Amino acid sequence: MENEIFQLQYAMDTFYFLVCGALVMWMAAGFSMLEAGLVRAKNTTEILTKNVMLFAIACTSYLVVGYDIMYGGGLFLAGIDGGETLVADALALSAEEGFEGGAVYSSASDFFFQVVFVATAMSIVSGAVAERMKLWAFAAFAVVMTAFIYPMEGSWTWGGADVFGMYNLGDLGFLDFAGSGIVHMAGAAAALAGVILLGARKGKYGPNGEVRPIPGANLPLATLGTFILWMGWFGFNGGSVLKLGDMASANAVAMVFLNTNAAAAGGVLAALVVAKLLFGKADLTMILNGALAGLVAITAGPDTPTPLMATIIGAVGGAIVVFSIVFMDKVKIDDPVGAISVHGVVGLWGLLAVPLTNADASFSAQIIGAVTIFVWVFVSSFIIWAVLKMIMGLRVTEEEEYEGVDLVECGMEAYPEFTNNSN
Amino acid sequence: MENEIFQLQYAMDTFYFLVCGALVMWMAAGFSMLEAGLVRAKNTTEILTKNVMLFAIACTSYLVVGYDIMYGGGLFLAGIDGGETLVADALALSAEEGFEGGAVYSSASDFFFQVVFVATAMSIVSGAVAERMKLWAFAAFAVVMTAFIYPMEGSWTWGGADVFGMYNLGDLGFLDFAGSGIVHMAGAAAALAGVILLGARKGKYGPNGEVRPIPGANLPLATLGTFILWMGWFGFNGGSVLKLGDMASANAVAMVFLNTNAAAAGGVLAALVVAKLLFGKADLTMILNGALAGLVAITAGPDTPTPLMATIIGAVGGAIVVFSIVFMDKVKIDDPVGAISVHGVVGLWGLLAVPLTNADASFSAQIIGAVTIFVWVFVSSFIIWAVLKMIMGLRVTEEEEYEGVDLVECGMEAYPEFTNNSN
Amino acid sequence: MENEIFQLQYAMDTFYFLVCGALVMWMAAGFSMLEAGLVRAKNTTEILTKNVMLFAIACTSYLVVGYDIMYGGGLFLAGIDGGETLVADALALSAEEGFEGGAVYSSASDFFFQVVFVATAMSIVSGAVAERMKLWAFAAFAVVMTAFIYPMEGSWTWGGADVFGMYNLGDLGFLDFAGSGIVHMAGAAAALAGVILLGARKGKYGPNGEVRPIPGANLPLATLGTFILWMGWFGFNGGSVLKLGDMASANAVAMVFLNTNAAAAGGVLAALVVAKLLFGKADLTMILNGALAGLVAITAGPDTPTPLMATIIGAVGGAIVVFSIVFMDKVKIDDPVGAISVHGVVGLWGLLAVPLTNADASFSAQIIGAVTIFVWVFVSSFIIWAVLKMIMGLRVTEEEEYEGVDLVECGMEAYPEFTNNSN
Repeated sequence: MENEIFQLQYAMDTFYFLVCGALVMWMAAGFSMLEAGLVRAKNTTEILTKNVMLFAIACTSYLVVGYDIMYGGGLFLAGIDGGETLVADALALSAEEGFEGGAVYSSASDFFFQVVFVATAMSIVSGAVAERMKLWAFAAFAVVMTAFIYPMEGSWTWGGADVFGMYNLGDLGFLDFAGSGIVHMAGAAAALAGVILLGARKGKYGPNGEVRPIPGANLPLATLGTFILWMGWFGFNGGSVLKLGDMASANAVAMVFLNTNAAAAGGVLAALVVAKLLFGKADLTMILNGALAGLVAITAGPDTPTPLMATIIGAVGGAIVVFSIVFMDKVKIDDPVGAISVHGVVGLWGLLAVPLTNADASFSAQIIGAVTIFVWVFVSSFIIWAVLKMIMGLRVTEEEEYEGVDLVECGMEAYPEFTNNSN
Repeated sequence: MENEIFQLQYAMDTFYFLVCGALVMWMAAGFSMLEAGLVRAKNTTEILTKNVMLFAIACTSYLVVGYDIMYGGGLFLAGIDGGETLVADALALSAEEGFEGGAVYSSASDFFFQVVFVATAMSIVSGAVAERMKLWAFAAFAVVMTAFIYPMEGSWTWGGADVFGMYNLGDLGFLDFAGSGIVHMAGAAAALAGVILLGARKGKYGPNGEVRPIPGANLPLATLGTFILWMGWFGFNGGSVLKLGDMASANAVAMVFLNTNAAAAGGVLAALVVAKLLFGKADLTMILNGALAGLVAITAGPDTPTPLMATIIGAVGGAIVVFSIVFMDKVKIDDPVGAISVHGVVGLWGLLAVPLTNADASFSAQIIGAVTIFVWVFVSSFIIWAVLKMIMGLRVTEEEEYEGVDLVECGMEAYPEFTNNSN
Repeated sequence: MENEIFQLQYAMDTFYFLVCGALVMWMAAGFSMLEAGLVRAKNTTEILTKNVMLFAIACTSYLVVGYDIMYGGGLFLAGIDGGETLVADALALSAEEGFEGGAVYSSASDFFFQVVFVATAMSIVSGAVAERMKLWAFAAFAVVMTAFIYPMEGSWTWGGADVFGMYNLGDLGFLDFAGSGIVHMAGAAAALAGVILLGARKGKYGPNGEVRPIPGANLPLATLGTFILWMGWFGFNGGSVLKLGDMASANAVAMVFLNTNAAAAGGVLAALVVAKLLFGKADLTMILNGALAGLVAITAGPDTPTPLMATIIGAVGGAIVVFSIVFMDKVKIDDPVGAISVHGVVGLWGLLAVPLTNADASFSAQIIGAVTIFVWVFVSSFIIWAVLKMIMGLRVTEEEEYEGVDLVECGMEAYPEFTNNSN
């Protein structure tokens, strides 16, 4: 009967992982809709194509090499199905050990949960480079990012390996619960490197330093994308507890759900108020970015704050993101959807906020971790983008950009009946 | 080992709550898309802004004061995380008591489930006052509604408190399983008060009593919103069983899922047929409202009917909603999305349908409960709306309404490239 | 205590079914958005109406007669709620038997899971006959399909009955895990019969055999629909394990989730590459169909392949679908969304792929099963469509088709402010 109890717990933890993984997969739809809503109509088909494509690339690259780099074992390339090894080990455990010995669940469910995280990191990139990058250069970068760049830094953090054999972030006390840094800031660092080499969209910045707004074509879509991400984030953070099937774990998962939601709400309210004060309007795109900023901010430590503190951490994120988006335009880093601010700047804030509510964390460890992730991802991405620029070029021609990348890359318009003039 | 079984049940019930809560949170996206699809393009950014904003306001207000008013204990403002008190109590229970003694689960999961209900009630309001209400007046009302008006009536029903110390709805036998009255009719009552003080949209009603149709700008979006709500409703009703982890509870949850779906289907079919008979067409907006009406109708008692009876209860709701929407226009209550009919009129039908299949319910108790909720919410909302009208005004200027509220309130268009003329 | 363990397992298996069922229900939204995105603006309201309507018809028909035909017992029409019979039986089992004796769960959850499958089969039809079929002829067909045609072939496969008393597909060894054939190819066969009797859209094929592209009006919507289907498919395939609550079952469910995702990714990549080679572009609609083809392909056997093999099975599906869509236009089978290729041709591939990784399957049994399903559904559907054609006609008039079916059938446009000219 002990064995039966253990099996139930195993099944429950596996199911919890799968449900959370499905929610994280759903975030791919969120990024697609968000980005499709915030670009111009003439670049919409291409951004959708990139989003579907990058998800498929991420799943396949991570299966073939990425997971192995990050966690070792080569379980999936070797085709060992259903995690029989892990199961065999697990069957030798008593129920007592199952309760005390941490998470035991299907290794397939673990892979499923991990693989959708890789896709999230890559999704962050597509928004920032939208409206002028070549589709196939992006595809090539996606392969390297998901097969190598992300798994390497993942191996140093969640994987537990030393950073180039030099130091161990875990030993230093670096804490990043669900990946404010490991996933979000990493994605933003890759995006930043790409944007620097790519340059701004034509017409975004005037000759006298003026910033010209380029409004998104479809704000309901952007709002839908934000809600999808908000929902998916319950899986992203909630699944990162890694275990559900005992009372302490269940409480932790519940607290993470609650705090994730509270932080998003805080982010919305802060962005709403800050944007109203700065621009005099209830700026919807800032509010949406505020929600996402709240979510990114809490991701590094959703388990320790009280719900009120989570709201505040999210609100600080929501305020930061408005200023950051304004600042990025000042320094002519053209990021059509604000991804570098939302995931990068606020991702850093999320890492730094952990010690505020978690006594096990320290600012120094958080800073070392943040610098490690940023430097690695930014530098390696910069090199890859630069190589791609030399080999195939990163940017479509000026005329193609004017006409819209949809026709040249995908051969079809996203809304053929709705728009009368390319803008 | 008894303790381990109890812990598994605790974890299962907590997870069930969290999954259901995430589905209810998803309903916020459903209301946003439904309302954004049914208003004109020029008012779309603003309705999206209101929906995101109200969800954030609801989550924060309910955290700070609302939950405390409704259930007492002050658990969340005080920042007691993870429900340690409840857990400590629970740990003293044996597994036997867990099976017999009702729901025991993380209090954080309970809060998470409750907070998304508040947001649902408030979401109902935004649709009815669309296209002419000031954004900040709406925001102010949202604070009062979610911090005070809803929690008060919630305390008399699910909270178990006496109504102003006078009578107790629970003792009278009032039954409202998941909130046809407590959530839906309450939201509609607040909306009705606002609409009366706000007046109809310019041009909706002609000088000779003619009703001018104002078609929604984006019906795929409205359909998506309806499907999102339909899906989210499984969490709304299914989670309201409050317990999953034994055979009787699991059967109840399954029956609630099945009946919720059956009632929505019944609502669709009835609205389809009634609209065809009345208007000669398969009126999509009526069909969508029929689905929602079916869902609202079954919400007061999804646990007792057979699936066939649930289909019929939903179908009656779907028929009522068509007549109600026509009637509201006759009496010049201008509700752009039909929210007052769907949630208010059919919410009342839902309450009255409970005694048809539940021997524990009585018509008199259902009527007393309905009157209590309606009078409280309508009167208190009317007062708040009236005060806001005096202080800041409820309605945008005639010119702003003509131009669309998007530009004046949010400073941006929802579809800048698609519409050539404001209507 | 044995009984308590059994009850926990029962609750867990029931909840797993309900979550998976809710995900499959969500696929109805996916089909709606996919189809609404791929038709022209003037036919969008009608396709949305058909999708909502068919879901409601499917739920009601299957409740009243379909489930009974497929599985016998008449449980639901008789209104036996909550599966008390099954529960009573189950209570007589010890926990040991529960672990060994296969799935034991709420019969209401089983019905809920089954009913959403019926709707999926019918959803496949609506896309293929889009833009020219009469709404009420479609509705009439939906009743027969969901009440009779699908349940009959379902009774021969999942129901275990003999095919017209002649042979038993289960005894022959026919394997179709979640329904590549039983659901997807069946839907496609019904669609094919309809399309043949209905004819192509006006202007699709020129007098000299040229194929004129008719682009979809809203590609973000089509992409959203694909992501919704991708997510919902985790429930479709994952729930078809039919049991979660022991270690072996949990591993199987996890493997199915992982393989389902891997196959979709493979389908995307193959369709991307094949379309690029054939057309020189990253064709988004082909990529979306590639994702769906990958999902259809793995559906007949998601439990046995390794993840890499699942990727390959999906990729073959993604390649097939591109060629099949081109071929269908060659033979003038006009299918606006490619449903016959995705669900029919690739559904057959899915059935034939099972023996590649599952030693219990044989090509001969798979072929006999495929022929049985196809012949039954195609012939019976053809007869029904033909009868409907005689009685009420299948096709709108030429003028109505030119004006768009939205106005004649539904009396409203989907995007009244966005389109300036009917095309």
